[in-house]
Parts: sequence; C-alpha cells; structure tokens
Amino acid sequence: MEEGLLVVISGPSGAGKGTICMQLLMEMSFLKVSVSATTRKPREGEKDGIDYFFIEEEEFLKRVKNNEFLEYAKVYGNYYGTPKEEVFKQLKAGKDIILEIDIQGALQVKKNYPMGVFIFILPPSLTELKNRIEGRGTDSKEVILRRMESAYDELNYAFQYDYVVVNDRVDIATEKIKHIILAEKNRAIRKKEIINKVREM
Amino acid sequence: MEEGLLVVISGPSGAGKGTICMQLLMEMSFLKVSVSATTRKPREGEKDGIDYFFIEEEEFLKRVKNNEFLEYAKVYGNYYGTPKEEVFKQLKAGKDIILEIDIQGALQVKKNYPMGVFIFILPPSLTELKNRIEGRGTDSKEVILRRMESAYDELNYAFQYDYVVVNDRVDIATEKIKHIILAEKNRAIRKKEIINKVREM
Repeated sequence: MEEGLLVVISGPSGAGKGTICMQLLMEMSFLKVSVSATTRKPREGEKDGIDYFFIEEEEFLKRVKNNEFLEYAKVYGNYYGTPKEEVFKQLKAGKDIILEIDIQGALQVKKNYPMGVFIFILPPSLTELKNRIEGRGTDSKEVILRRMESAYDELNYAFQYDYVVVNDRVDIATEKIKHIILAEKNRAIRKKEIINKVREM
Repeated sequence: MEEGLLVVISGPSGAGKGTICMQLLMEMSFLKVSVSATTRKPREGEKDGIDYFFIEEEEFLKRVKNNEFLEYAKVYGNYYGTPKEEVFKQLKAGKDIILEIDIQGALQVKKNYPMGVFIFILPPSLTELKNRIEGRGTDSKEVILRRMESAYDELNYAFQYDYVVVNDRVDIATEKIKHIILAEKNRAIRKKEIINKVREM
C-alpha cells in the first residue's frame, strides 16, 4: 500500500488559502481534511471528532509535552492543534490529507513531517492582499496594517516551501495545485516499493 | 522572464521513453527537443542544425575537453552529445526543453544541471520489458539477455531521479508526466523573481 500525501496549503492571511482548499476538496474527492484538536468550547451544532476533537487545556498541554501534535498554536486564548496519530493513521491507509494552515504552523509541520508537500499561496500583489483583507470588513485599520507588515516579512518563508502558487484567479491556482498533487504521487522517494516489485516480476 | 524547464526522460532500454516523448511533444506544443551534436556522417535527407549538428571527431573531442556537453557518449564508434550552449540559450529564453536519454546520459546531465526535472520511466515488470525488447525483433538472444541484466541493475538508479513513472499504458504515463511538468513550473526554487515582484506591488 502506497502512503498517502500530506498536502499543506499555507500562506499569508488573505492569500485565499480557504477558498482554494474548498475548491480542491470539491474537485478531488479523494482528498480528506484532518480533524484538529482544540480547547475551545464546542459551538452550537459542532460535533466532537467531526468538527474538532474537543479536549481540556490540561489534556492539550500534556499532549504538547508528549510531542503528539504536528503543529499547534494558541489563538485568542484557545489552543488548536493537529494530532499526529490521526494524520499518520490516514496516510498509512493510503489517504491523501489536506491541511490549511498559517505559515508558523506549516513550518512546524515541516519539521515533524518533511515528506509533506508544502505549498505557499502567494497573493498577486501586496496591494491586492490589502484590498482583500479590507474587503472582508472584519479587521480594524490597525489590524490590517499589522497583517500587511507580517505579509511583507512572511513572503521570505516562501522559499522554505516546495511550491509557490500565485492566487490571481482561484480556478487557475486550484488547477496548478491539482497538477502538483498528481505529480507528487510519482516522486522517486515515494516509489521504493514499486521499484522493487517491478524487479521481481 | 522565467527560465524554461529541462525535462529529462530516461530509463532502461525498452521502457518506452521514445513513445512517451513523441506523445508529450504532440500534446504539449510548447516543449522543444534539443539538437544533438554527432560525429556520425549525415544520412540521406538529414540536415545540419536540424537533425543533428554534424561535426568532426577532432572538434567533438575538443568540445568534450572544454566541458561543452551536458552529456555525451560513444555509440558504435560515433560520438553523440548534447551541447550545453544550445540548451542553456533556449532555457534562458523561457523555452521548455525535453531530452530523451539513457541512464548514464541522464546522470551526466544531472551533474551538469541539477535544476533539471529527471523522470525515470519504469517498465511495469521485467517480464514485460523482455517481451517488448523481443517484440522489436532487432536484438539477438545474447543482446536481449545483456539488456535484461542491465535493466535489473539500472532500476537502482531510479532513486537518483526526481520522479518515477510506470509505463504500463502510454496514455496514462504521458498524462502523469504532463502533471509533473506543469507542477514543476511552480517549484519554489524557480519563483524568486515573482516573490520579489509581489512584494514591491
């Protein structure tokens, strides 16, 4: 059984990671999302083990100490993390997993699982990024300014990824990522088993 | 201007490199083949600079000494080589070049141009490889035996390539290589220019 791919979609806030991931999930039905663990309380309708694994902070921190997360972060007082066991179990079963995540998280994942496919979503320009963040209407001027400053710095991290995809148009960016996923399945490093099989036949 | 890709299609004799390359050239019209240099005399209808660059042995060996070839080999008393200058000029101009070549040649190219995309074409089985070579009807039993022995050993080299594609059906193998070519255009290492451009806009 060939191991599945861990596809990490990352990039600055406002680059369009979320929209691209939704599009990918619709068009490539074999892709699965991983379920995160969180210390946040479940919202109306959210189900444990489906939307999130809801756990207590003490338990979360214990798991952090045991190195049980591919990555984790504290956001507005709550912890969020990607459980290694959950992801590795699916990869072993040949499932391809997609993870949408910010840059700090992606770099943590890379350290823990360098075999992943790391894709940096690049906005077409910082001006366009600003327009998109402003367009959401959710952030104050101060927050927007801070986001723009980090975006400028964060572009440096693009070189630590395997691929960089400009998100000028969502359909084109999604198409490029589809090629990347299908290409990565043929990487020599993933083919040891099949090469040995061919030899014996 | 983004540099073109050097796509190297390689693998054991009988794996189907040639058929796949023809298919790729038909389906991806932006791909170009590089013109080799040779010391072989031109055959009826062959044109200098189009089919080959026809040169004298003295001149060829001078170029070998000057390290002017991406790879070269002596086959049945004649030299064949891929001129660096020719290939690099096209890559600089943004053209994608495809090179169909045996394993020894591909490893030479990799040494001289590690930025290339190295694809190993794998026969579905050694039995099938034997059938294909026998089916050609051009080789003696002795030659076939020798080819099979080298194929067995040559499979080890697959791990020095970037990708391994099983050629069970030509159309499927070609499709996989198309994904690889389109994916490789998004490699982070090739995106320095665009990342800096985004930052300044």
